[in-house]
Amino acid sequence: MSLQNRRIVLAERPSGMVDEQTTRLETEQVPFSDLKDGQALVKVGYLSIDPTIRTWMDDVPGYLPPIQLGEVIRSGGVGEIVESRTDAYRPGQLVFGMTGWQEYVVIDGSESAMQVLPEGVSPTAAIGILGVTGMTAYFGLIDVGGVKEGDVVIVSGAAGATGSTVGQIAKIKGAKKVVGIAGGAEKCGYIVDELGFDEAIDYKSDNVARRLREACPDGIDLYFDNVGGSILNDCLANLAMRGRVVLCGAISTYNSDEPPPGPSNYLNLLLQRGRMEGFIILDYLDRFPEAQLEMAGWIAEGKIKSSEHIVDGLENAPDALNLLFTGGNTGKVIVKL
Amino acid sequence: MSLQNRRIVLAERPSGMVDEQTTRLETEQVPFSDLKDGQALVKVGYLSIDPTIRTWMDDVPGYLPPIQLGEVIRSGGVGEIVESRTDAYRPGQLVFGMTGWQEYVVIDGSESAMQVLPEGVSPTAAIGILGVTGMTAYFGLIDVGGVKEGDVVIVSGAAGATGSTVGQIAKIKGAKKVVGIAGGAEKCGYIVDELGFDEAIDYKSDNVARRLREACPDGIDLYFDNVGGSILNDCLANLAMRGRVVLCGAISTYNSDEPPPGPSNYLNLLLQRGRMEGFIILDYLDRFPEAQLEMAGWIAEGKIKSSEHIVDGLENAPDALNLLFTGGNTGKVIVKL
Repeated sequence: MSLQNRRIVLAERPSGMVDEQTTRLETEQVPFSDLKDGQALVKVGYLSIDPTIRTWMDDVPGYLPPIQLGEVIRSGGVGEIVESRTDAYRPGQLVFGMTGWQEYVVIDGSESAMQVLPEGVSPTAAIGILGVTGMTAYFGLIDVGGVKEGDVVIVSGAAGATGSTVGQIAKIKGAKKVVGIAGGAEKCGYIVDELGFDEAIDYKSDNVARRLREACPDGIDLYFDNVGGSILNDCLANLAMRGRVVLCGAISTYNSDEPPPGPSNYLNLLLQRGRMEGFIILDYLDRFPEAQLEMAGWIAEGKIKSSEHIVDGLENAPDALNLLFTGGNTGKVIVKL
Repeated sequence: MSLQNRRIVLAERPSGMVDEQTTRLETEQVPFSDLKDGQALVKVGYLSIDPTIRTWMDDVPGYLPPIQLGEVIRSGGVGEIVESRTDAYRPGQLVFGMTGWQEYVVIDGSESAMQVLPEGVSPTAAIGILGVTGMTAYFGLIDVGGVKEGDVVIVSGAAGATGSTVGQIAKIKGAKKVVGIAGGAEKCGYIVDELGFDEAIDYKSDNVARRLREACPDGIDLYFDNVGGSILNDCLANLAMRGRVVLCGAISTYNSDEPPPGPSNYLNLLLQRGRMEGFIILDYLDRFPEAQLEMAGWIAEGKIKSSEHIVDGLENAPDALNLLFTGGNTGKVIVKL
């Protein structure tokens, strides 16, 4: 007996957005009888669509190896155990981890390849607010950025999954002012009206540098950078004394073939005794449980809201990824299989 | 009774190097009878020539206000008290502080405008290895950079006053390898043969990026940046996991009218979980005594060597400043009046 696994592989390395040239939908047979002792078969239900996936498609060194041509696109996801030959999993359990862009994946129980969803956590929360996305906001802001009471906090990509969470945690932690940078009036309205940001800057219509000076006359204590490019540079120009810049991503540059221009205002780090620091959330895996507990509490109290942008169908995963770069999403982008 | 004070003022804001257009030698009368209660008159003996002086000449915000047109060029220096109407100083004492490029300066004892040289400290050491220059190396490397045993340390401007000290302290602190970047075979020979650096890279003739990869196959744990520009960018590209970049200066950019290009490899801070941090030595003034004591001990033990590049005559101070940018000096540039 066997079943069909539809999967999306990397066909060509993209230059810019992914498209039908650069990704290929394939179908392979998965023979059930091939399942070895210690393995389990997962039927994937949801894919976590994150900007970092795009960086894995380039043939450049990164924090994980590049995806090879012909390989399934690497991706987080949630699925259900449909067959198990290991004590680690039993059929019917929901699990999350690296599924790839495909309908089925064989996992190895002995390596704890995937984690069982805790009681009460929805599949989409497991890859969103309580998953890597939310944890990125939590540890980036608190651990790397050292957010503290009275801080003036700026976050870019503010209507995105990570950015929207960063702003809300900053308010919980006592930030004096939280300003989000997002594209378009709708997103700007959303983060202020729905999420409680103090102000929004619309990078598509505002002069970001000038608006930053207006919104933060005493400078920026903490900038959480999801986008890179000119916005990073503008924030560096307006850094407060001992200001911190948390480098989480550089979504404005991931589709560029050219190396992005560096932030020419970096020397303001010297004048302001500032610090710019990067992090990779994978380093914090062992501390997820404590953070997830706290985050779940905030959600229960209504202090943190999250929104999800659900795209239907595996075949639409490439388009879903592109949404992150066109700014077509508000909140976490998830593909429902 | 009065005496003549020769002084150099800022005549025009320089574009590039300073010259006879941008600075002006003036003579003023200093009436002794003008000395008020609480004041003292200092005869300046030595000027500390530092890259940061050039930054004060530009009309841009900095950690100190720009020098105004017609004002004496701001500068550290050492002098002797020649008359005093305060208990804080007595004639014959040597003092150091901000003298400016001039022969005489009136100081205010009540504000401790200048410090009396400790016993046994030479005038040139007070503005060099035991002064702001040496302290910059000490606190930048130890406090900001957090140098530790086993580190691979890179320092640029390595034959300069600060850089040469950074490399030697790194060795004392147990760095596994210390590599200096300097211009020309003579300076490269000096830092390896005389100062004990493990290797030197000649930025004038070597491919810096390639030599960094060769010299640091496991990456750079700590880069002490005095120069900015392409060398900073090359070091960022070769950062080790959790590598630190200490921003001390950007001498390659101070004479440029254009904003310097930013370091396009800054995103490696994210991949490597790195940190780039700036500092200003003025923040450490209250901790100078402890550091000076330790530094004096290292000098006495022969573990730290320093060299001085003495230029004669106040009128040559502008040329002395330019030496820092042409790389015409080895060690601390001092003007002897």
